[in-house]
Amino acid sequence: MLKLNKTTQNELNKVQGTIKKELSNEKIIQEIYEYIFQKEGKKTRALLCLLSSKSQNIKPKNRINLASIIELLHTATLVHDDVVDESELRRGEKSVNQVWTNSYSVLMGDFIYSKAFILMVKLGLQSILDELSQATNDIAKGEIIQLYLFEKNKMVELHDLLKVSYLKTGRLFEASAKTGAILANKTKIEIKRFGLLGKFLGTAFQIRDDILDYESYILNTGKPLMKDFKEGKITFPLYFAFKNAKPKDQKFIMKQLGAKKISQKNLRYIYDLVKNEKAQLEVNALLEKYIKKSFMQLNYLKDDPCYNELEELINFSKIRKI
Amino acid sequence: MLKLNKTTQNELNKVQGTIKKELSNEKIIQEIYEYIFQKEGKKTRALLCLLSSKSQNIKPKNRINLASIIELLHTATLVHDDVVDESELRRGEKSVNQVWTNSYSVLMGDFIYSKAFILMVKLGLQSILDELSQATNDIAKGEIIQLYLFEKNKMVELHDLLKVSYLKTGRLFEASAKTGAILANKTKIEIKRFGLLGKFLGTAFQIRDDILDYESYILNTGKPLMKDFKEGKITFPLYFAFKNAKPKDQKFIMKQLGAKKISQKNLRYIYDLVKNEKAQLEVNALLEKYIKKSFMQLNYLKDDPCYNELEELINFSKIRKI
Repeated sequence: MLKLNKTTQNELNKVQGTIKKELSNEKIIQEIYEYIFQKEGKKTRALLCLLSSKSQNIKPKNRINLASIIELLHTATLVHDDVVDESELRRGEKSVNQVWTNSYSVLMGDFIYSKAFILMVKLGLQSILDELSQATNDIAKGEIIQLYLFEKNKMVELHDLLKVSYLKTGRLFEASAKTGAILANKTKIEIKRFGLLGKFLGTAFQIRDDILDYESYILNTGKPLMKDFKEGKITFPLYFAFKNAKPKDQKFIMKQLGAKKISQKNLRYIYDLVKNEKAQLEVNALLEKYIKKSFMQLNYLKDDPCYNELEELINFSKIRKI
Repeated sequence: MLKLNKTTQNELNKVQGTIKKELSNEKIIQEIYEYIFQKEGKKTRALLCLLSSKSQNIKPKNRINLASIIELLHTATLVHDDVVDESELRRGEKSVNQVWTNSYSVLMGDFIYSKAFILMVKLGLQSILDELSQATNDIAKGEIIQLYLFEKNKMVELHDLLKVSYLKTGRLFEASAKTGAILANKTKIEIKRFGLLGKFLGTAFQIRDDILDYESYILNTGKPLMKDFKEGKITFPLYFAFKNAKPKDQKFIMKQLGAKKISQKNLRYIYDLVKNEKAQLEVNALLEKYIKKSFMQLNYLKDDPCYNELEELINFSKIRKI
């Protein structure tokens, strides 16, 4: 488990509290809103924002508000993603589209997005508004590109995977760290460092996430078994499995990918291809590369009050099991 | 047709140009974006914004930008609405969810929403950001309440219909007029008047829209025949038809509303119930009431440069056929 300072843990709890305080006087909206936020996520982006905004001169309340905004934005993307992926589960519970309908998910996502923007406007910092609206746009862009790439039923290029990972995941990590640093009035060069650290950490986070999707085959992660593969998603582990597979296995991968019904035997075969030694070496090397890139940026931030905790977060991102 | 000054028509054309200039370097995004904006809508909200921002001291470019932002926000809601309503057509063309998929619609809606926020941030006026983020949130709220109301398969109350119409339509009309006046540095009381005028005009616009949905039975409006009824939507004309119908016809209405298959004969019967003399009188009186409310606000704006055109717009909203 990620070890955090007591103060930081306390602040992260307050993020949850801040989000839950955003009440609606409409019963149905309140009901879905509470359902969405009853199960706490990891809040990695909110944490990154809390850490990068640490400064003696900034009120914790403003930092908690910014972190809450980021968590709201992230949650809105998840609610919409569940429609796009036709997901049945989110954080071990039925997704909104399952308990209610896709229509409710689309509109609740919009509700949460705009709620985040309302709170952002209240914060009143133009550069934060700028960064977060750009990031939201980039996330949508990343998701659309991904959808389009996977439609072709063809193996993708590594640079496409990296681009999509940056847009859909790295981009909000980048914005979380960057806006945190902006809020804390850090220097221009520091803000840049924080942004880059977030960007690389976000990509590392996505690679680890993709790896964990296949680990779900043996670990009890609470996530459905090889969900990405079943949904037809080409992720980093599968990319390297394909690259190192024989032509007949490559054909097999593309045939099974996203198929309506995949037998346990075939799923196991795919799993074994992903667990191929060379494929594993390559995907872990890629993860290591982005972890290192994150540390390289952290090195410039030795005097920052969040140095130790960020170090812990980067290390944790490499090995996390959930 | 609505008669506009040459200058205003010219500005409205520039809104379309400004929107189309928002290019993406991603082919698939550009393709869907262009598809969405190829068919021009009426741009009533953008027009209202252009009119209420008229002032000698304000650069037309900023006004056109604000009107474009409002048109983008409105379009994003339409793209998401088509998913919610499972619509097949939009402005006489296949909707995005038909040409592509619901997933693309959800994400393109998000893309356009966030694009609007990016441009809003560039405008750099806190009070405009505040108003438009609140309005976006209220629209989502209105759509969710509507979804929930119609689920119950029970006649709704008039005050519920008015509330939903305000949130999903009146609210953006209100914001369009209000932010226009804010941009033009009008006085606090004028901004309030413009807001109220927009709010009432928006409700009138919605009532007229609901009436037109039934007129589609005889007029060739380019819209599908009695789309609202087929989608299970209770609108103003149906509300009054129900109110004035015999109990057996009331039962018939509720049974047919949103049914998977409705025969031409039954559709005609519903149409005749809506065309009931008393029902027609009542729905037209309600429309007239909101037109009058709009004019009452306009009366306070006699010295405003947009007075004549707003008068024309309000009159047109009452009788428009498209």
